[in-house]
Amino acid sequence: MTKQGKNFKTSSIGNIQKLGRVTLNAELALTGSEISINELPAGVGVPFVHAHKRNEEVYIVVKGKGVFYVDGEEFAIEEGDVVRVDPTAARSIAASATSPIRYICIQTEAKSLVQHTQNDGVPVKAKTSWIK
Amino acid sequence: MTKQGKNFKTSSIGNIQKLGRVTLNAELALTGSEISINELPAGVGVPFVHAHKRNEEVYIVVKGKGVFYVDGEEFAIEEGDVVRVDPTAARSIAASATSPIRYICIQTEAKSLVQHTQNDGVPVKAKTSWIK
Repeated sequence: MTKQGKNFKTSSIGNIQKLGRVTLNAELALTGSEISINELPAGVGVPFVHAHKRNEEVYIVVKGKGVFYVDGEEFAIEEGDVVRVDPTAARSIAASATSPIRYICIQTEAKSLVQHTQNDGVPVKAKTSWIK
Repeated sequence: MTKQGKNFKTSSIGNIQKLGRVTLNAELALTGSEISINELPAGVGVPFVHAHKRNEEVYIVVKGKGVFYVDGEEFAIEEGDVVRVDPTAARSIAASATSPIRYICIQTEAKSLVQHTQNDGVPVKAKTSWIK
């Protein structure tokens, strides 16, 4: 699916298992984040450790099992686990020996969020096919 | 799983099918985003339309099928579809009549991202159990 309008843009991720990694910033013309959807096969880890200059990262495990490394510590992660990592932390991630892992990684400028949800939301009087 | 250190914090989402909605900003002490993981049962839609003052939203469908509404237009969405919505757009989302939908919604300050990925990343010389 690819649709766009004045105030929105859509895309389809495709076959993540085959692609390994898909990034959304350029594809969706994002201005507040870079988002990647990633899958590592069983027994495979990201082959480097990295930190960031400015960006906070959030990892969301959506499928499978793995291991997360941060600042010298390692711990098991699985579907439903989420991790916030501050910019200066050294981090890496791997699938477990016996299971692939699929995860979403969200990069944002640290300390950039001003307000959210009810403080930022504006009710709109409009009907949809499910709101009569 | 709940672990934290100087530069990271983890949590577990729990049973989204039962909970319906889990938000991560407070739980993980996020400073660059609010992230929600949501599930709507088949035939159920968010009962209101809303816009935002400052925040860009990205919707990622991780399971199931549904319908997305933006500025008077509706279109079908399914697993693997992603949507960027600018702050002023009127938006809502529903599960399809026959399938639940699970999606992640990421709120960030529009235009806040300064740089990302290779421009923001810093290589760290460190070993993990999978990087020898």
